[in-house]
Amino acid sequence: MADTESGSDRALREHLSRKGKYEILSKAPLNTKEDLSIFYTPGVAKVSEAIRREEDKVYDYTSKGNTVAIVTDGTRILGLGNIGPKAGLPVMEGKAVLFKKFGGVDAIPLCIGTRDEASIIRFVTEVAPTFGAVNIEDIESPKSFRIVDALSKMLDIPVFHDDQQGTAVVTLAALTNSLKLAGKGKDARIVVNGAGSAGLGIIRLLSHSGYRNLVALDSLGIIYKGRQENMNEFKEEIADSTNRERKSGTLDDAAEKADALIGASKANAFNGKLIAGMNEKPIVFALANPYPEIEYAAAKSAGAFIAATGRSDTPNQVNNVLAFPSIMRGLLDVRARSVDYGILEAAATAIAKSVGRELGTEMILPNIMDRKSALRIASRVSSAVATAAMRSGLARINVDAVIVGKNAVKRIRRYWNIERKALKIAP
Amino acid sequence: MADTESGSDRALREHLSRKGKYEILSKAPLNTKEDLSIFYTPGVAKVSEAIRREEDKVYDYTSKGNTVAIVTDGTRILGLGNIGPKAGLPVMEGKAVLFKKFGGVDAIPLCIGTRDEASIIRFVTEVAPTFGAVNIEDIESPKSFRIVDALSKMLDIPVFHDDQQGTAVVTLAALTNSLKLAGKGKDARIVVNGAGSAGLGIIRLLSHSGYRNLVALDSLGIIYKGRQENMNEFKEEIADSTNRERKSGTLDDAAEKADALIGASKANAFNGKLIAGMNEKPIVFALANPYPEIEYAAAKSAGAFIAATGRSDTPNQVNNVLAFPSIMRGLLDVRARSVDYGILEAAATAIAKSVGRELGTEMILPNIMDRKSALRIASRVSSAVATAAMRSGLARINVDAVIVGKNAVKRIRRYWNIERKALKIAP
Repeated sequence: MADTESGSDRALREHLSRKGKYEILSKAPLNTKEDLSIFYTPGVAKVSEAIRREEDKVYDYTSKGNTVAIVTDGTRILGLGNIGPKAGLPVMEGKAVLFKKFGGVDAIPLCIGTRDEASIIRFVTEVAPTFGAVNIEDIESPKSFRIVDALSKMLDIPVFHDDQQGTAVVTLAALTNSLKLAGKGKDARIVVNGAGSAGLGIIRLLSHSGYRNLVALDSLGIIYKGRQENMNEFKEEIADSTNRERKSGTLDDAAEKADALIGASKANAFNGKLIAGMNEKPIVFALANPYPEIEYAAAKSAGAFIAATGRSDTPNQVNNVLAFPSIMRGLLDVRARSVDYGILEAAATAIAKSVGRELGTEMILPNIMDRKSALRIASRVSSAVATAAMRSGLARINVDAVIVGKNAVKRIRRYWNIERKALKIAP
Repeated sequence: MADTESGSDRALREHLSRKGKYEILSKAPLNTKEDLSIFYTPGVAKVSEAIRREEDKVYDYTSKGNTVAIVTDGTRILGLGNIGPKAGLPVMEGKAVLFKKFGGVDAIPLCIGTRDEASIIRFVTEVAPTFGAVNIEDIESPKSFRIVDALSKMLDIPVFHDDQQGTAVVTLAALTNSLKLAGKGKDARIVVNGAGSAGLGIIRLLSHSGYRNLVALDSLGIIYKGRQENMNEFKEEIADSTNRERKSGTLDDAAEKADALIGASKANAFNGKLIAGMNEKPIVFALANPYPEIEYAAAKSAGAFIAATGRSDTPNQVNNVLAFPSIMRGLLDVRARSVDYGILEAAATAIAKSVGRELGTEMILPNIMDRKSALRIASRVSSAVATAAMRSGLARINVDAVIVGKNAVKRIRRYWNIERKALKIAP
């Protein structure tokens, strides 16, 4: 819809009239001198002293525990490439309001003016005291992987990489339900085309989750142990965890008799012939955005049992917003020190189950735009994430996971209520 | 009030129940797939492309133009000293909500985990693309002066130092009205006790504004050109712009026959004898916080014609909140590249005039807690700042300064309306 000329114009107009998509709202009244003396000087000094004495009290008395930094250097914004931090800001603001809308999480865009890997790592470590978690976003790979891996070791808060981990979670959820519908299991042959952020994340999460019959490809073809051309430490990691037979070859070779073909590459990378050569009940996820590896209708007419894309205008949209807000909700509610693949797998399982009885070949994922469904996702995913984090020892505090889910619903409902009232007031 | 045991307890309790004083609010609806396709993908890509083509469009399409980073390293939080970034967070959150409440400005606390001067400078330059201005806060001096001076040269957005510049503006406003009431002019002999952030800022602004009979002191006594002990580049600057007779001596020496005595030092630094030795109609500002150099009542009974402190429980509170929100409002509305002393002087004049006909020895500054008065301050100060910025060539765009004032009122009223509704909804 917004792909059309008028859609673009409307996007520009709607952004221009608002000058940004988020603003600050006070949670404290500041109407009297007494209010000021409680929430500002001199009262706030007592709060600062309490945190100085016991640093973890910062989670009790401040916004840290519900606030996430969305950090980008603007080098890989959507499909637009390296357009810089300022041009990346509208995307990060969109992300910020989605965090709040679907997770009750306060996220702050920080679009930074350095592309240097070490500088980005240092920047994030410096800003970390203010935040309960970090979301690394739209940074070019493989730099982004090194940044995320380094920060995860250095910081005592979760460093989430949505391009990698968020996409992987939703893909695993979609795959789980698709294989279930196809009557297949974890021995299914799964081909992942693309070794960027999404591809690596999917491989890492599928490997962790027990999928052993994986094959991955980059632009040179199948990745295998011993390949010399165009490798890096992350492709070596992929080679180690996939393709046990060390086969080489093209996408056509890889897709032959495959049960699932997952595209995390670029527009038109797939075709009908590829799908025709797959195993029975082929599953095709074409996740390149906004233009998929193969259009939904084309995949279906080529024989796909289930097709999915990243687009909202056809069934089975594989959309990260199903994952990142409520994963973050769960991580924050246990004051997690980090996020691991066990937590991500738990999130994927919870998303898959949130579809409920509506599960079908045109409904492999829940619909976040349905309010009841959105609350169900938030509740189940945050609860599952909290449980997994406590189990893995990454939680700072122990909480009742059922309460985490209930609080997520309460918090999000409260925010919707405020937002509805606020949007009625003329700007 | 909150100084008492129960006040402290209440401050802790009110902070604990809220877990932070600010949250994010969306300015865009995200209720349908169409909303999502306008404010997020794919529509947002057109907005990003428009900014990539013409960088300054970031002011039209994003939050940058209304968003301020509040940056501290936690080394000089209130009167508490170096308590670290996490303990500084409650104070910065308080500042953030005051920016919104009284200026309609969206401010984000960034409490950073480095005390290194070069690192702080680099951090701010890196985060600058996201923000329309920076507020440096509660960083130890003289490091803070070097940071502010360096950043002001490096960045194309204003770098405001509230401890230095905000305090100076409100002090000049208070002094202007006090001298008017005392029937004195710019030749008045003014003594500034303290050469930290506030002291330096006051000296800089008073010098700029044509006060030539200034004397400044630090803990060693009067600062004079040629003094050897305990000097630095900023005290040399003070020595250059004050004390033309190069007198040395103590606070008692300096205060003798002075017209105004301004304390930016520490509790109990003044006494009645000092005031008794001043010129007729002595003006005494004791701004140390929360415990002034001399209590209001003591200053008055020692013969002060006008006394003022930083406290809210006696008349004439010299409070930065009179200045920083509406100065920032004006700077943002002209997309200022920087802030200079001409702008600050214009702000001080506008604050002084906002008192109106209520002007008196117990009313030298307007009352921000009165809603009409708050709107009057916002309107006049933002308008005066915009005018001064356009005149000095620091404005990126030319606007009608009257409209700036009117828009400030509109924007703040709108926010109050939202806040009132939001605070009614149970957390």
